[in-house]
Amino acid sequence: MKGKVSGVRGSKVRAGTAESAAPIGVTMGDPAGVGPEIVIKALAGLRLRNLVLVGSRRVFEEEQRRQSAVALPGNAVSDPVGRVGRFSMGKEQKRCGAAALASLEHGVELLRRGEIRALVTAPVSKQALRMAGFRWPGQTEFLAERLGAKRHAMLAWTRRFKAVFVTIHLPLSLVARRITTAAVLEKTELLHGFLVREGNSEPRIGVMSFNPHGSEFSRGEEVRIREAVRRARRAGIDAHGPVPADALVARSGDYDGCVAMYHDQAMIPAKMAGNGVNVTLGLGRVRTSPLHGVAFDIAGTGRASSGSMEAAIRLARRLGS
Amino acid sequence: MKGKVSGVRGSKVRAGTAESAAPIGVTMGDPAGVGPEIVIKALAGLRLRNLVLVGSRRVFEEEQRRQSAVALPGNAVSDPVGRVGRFSMGKEQKRCGAAALASLEHGVELLRRGEIRALVTAPVSKQALRMAGFRWPGQTEFLAERLGAKRHAMLAWTRRFKAVFVTIHLPLSLVARRITTAAVLEKTELLHGFLVREGNSEPRIGVMSFNPHGSEFSRGEEVRIREAVRRARRAGIDAHGPVPADALVARSGDYDGCVAMYHDQAMIPAKMAGNGVNVTLGLGRVRTSPLHGVAFDIAGTGRASSGSMEAAIRLARRLGS
Repeated sequence: MKGKVSGVRGSKVRAGTAESAAPIGVTMGDPAGVGPEIVIKALAGLRLRNLVLVGSRRVFEEEQRRQSAVALPGNAVSDPVGRVGRFSMGKEQKRCGAAALASLEHGVELLRRGEIRALVTAPVSKQALRMAGFRWPGQTEFLAERLGAKRHAMLAWTRRFKAVFVTIHLPLSLVARRITTAAVLEKTELLHGFLVREGNSEPRIGVMSFNPHGSEFSRGEEVRIREAVRRARRAGIDAHGPVPADALVARSGDYDGCVAMYHDQAMIPAKMAGNGVNVTLGLGRVRTSPLHGVAFDIAGTGRASSGSMEAAIRLARRLGS
Repeated sequence: MKGKVSGVRGSKVRAGTAESAAPIGVTMGDPAGVGPEIVIKALAGLRLRNLVLVGSRRVFEEEQRRQSAVALPGNAVSDPVGRVGRFSMGKEQKRCGAAALASLEHGVELLRRGEIRALVTAPVSKQALRMAGFRWPGQTEFLAERLGAKRHAMLAWTRRFKAVFVTIHLPLSLVARRITTAAVLEKTELLHGFLVREGNSEPRIGVMSFNPHGSEFSRGEEVRIREAVRRARRAGIDAHGPVPADALVARSGDYDGCVAMYHDQAMIPAKMAGNGVNVTLGLGRVRTSPLHGVAFDIAGTGRASSGSMEAAIRLARRLGS
């Protein structure tokens, strides 16, 4: 079935088909993690149409039997993997990393060719991916390179709280020097573009302080953030800040979106809000993902919640229409 | 009235009166901030008995007229301030700082002498306090010194989330070097002691990672945290971690309390949870405070919520009984 794409209850995608008629692709993620479980659960929860699963048909079918779910239609899976071979749940393994990588690469290729209109990626183990030869910091950077995106950003999306990250995956002690006016401005612009495309013509954006209480304990970061806010406002963006992060989340209803300086500033509120979605901005294509990892500690137990995956698929459908 | 203490509807406190019969003292805070407003609102909301307000009687009475509240009984205020003089709402002013400082000093003295059984402090402006000669980083450090506490800690207390701070008020770029095994262990022990006194004989404590994803981006901090957890467990404390902060807050119901490495890690979840209380641990006395500042932006508008102040008074009453 490699490379052949069809949707659940949908017809085959022909060249020249309108983008909006193309299905949404959902990758399997690491088969030793909760990815296949939450994908199959989401199918049941969402009554999805026009969707294609990208990954090992055997893995998906095995998971369906486990959940006693309705069998997948024959054309619902695009399988670039074939057999994964024997593996254990809840562990980093090279063959699982390779299967996740093949699914991801195939999904990106379908997205690049317009055969799917949005890509939803299930969680991967970066360690397992690396065992299989993956050399990017994460799925996002891989997607950005493959799709030729120069400026991109990660957005933590929840119904009540949305935050774009200025920095994400680096030691916290190294973050301060990465808080530059240019970086804050770029992420603010990407967030603004996203919110406008979502239908809010004049979104109000709150930009977080790096330090506690804002300027009181600043070593220059807040000066640089303030300058980014000034430039954003000059460019017509309704940006405010820097606002101390705790004060901002306490009044998050006052903002349509936030700019967070580092991982935990965005992820703590997003995880508290629940059912979070990771959206990659700046790709020129729609890519979402549940805002959690492979959860090896509960993989294979059937206890994983598909709430974030369902939200990721719903959002991809909305953004990709 | 200076130095004379009585409670609302309570009798005068005599030497030798049982600690539990002593009233709870509530300071005024900075009169240009929301302190007097939320104190008077809390009185109405809580139908409080056995409480003494510590601050300017004129300021409290003025606020009562503004709120059309029932007049205070004659013995409900212990006033070490007298006239504050003319001041503007919503600004740092030396005379307001001096009034807040006099109230705080008097409150601490009453607590030290056992004339009140717990102290609740309304918000102060550190800048105004400094104009009036205050030389401590904040109220907490002042209290610790006056009460001779060597080990102390700040706890952000809400109904669903409780976190003690390993570091609080310093630039975030300087936090990493302060994450020592000794510091994490000390705060974990203070939190454990508090939770046990609150009635939980075997509290489960979650210790946060400093870096995103825990060890993945660690530059040694997680090794030191892990060692503190090991030592705490050896001392009989049911401590767990380091757990990535976002994962921990997502499952905060699994823990009776958390240890946060820096300001925003504790304050973001606490502010989202709402009606937070600042509790000082290690004083050998009960001291609470609402988990917010003077809110100069809304001072004098009547829009301040007294939810945190009411929670602070309720908690002080419970802890001090």
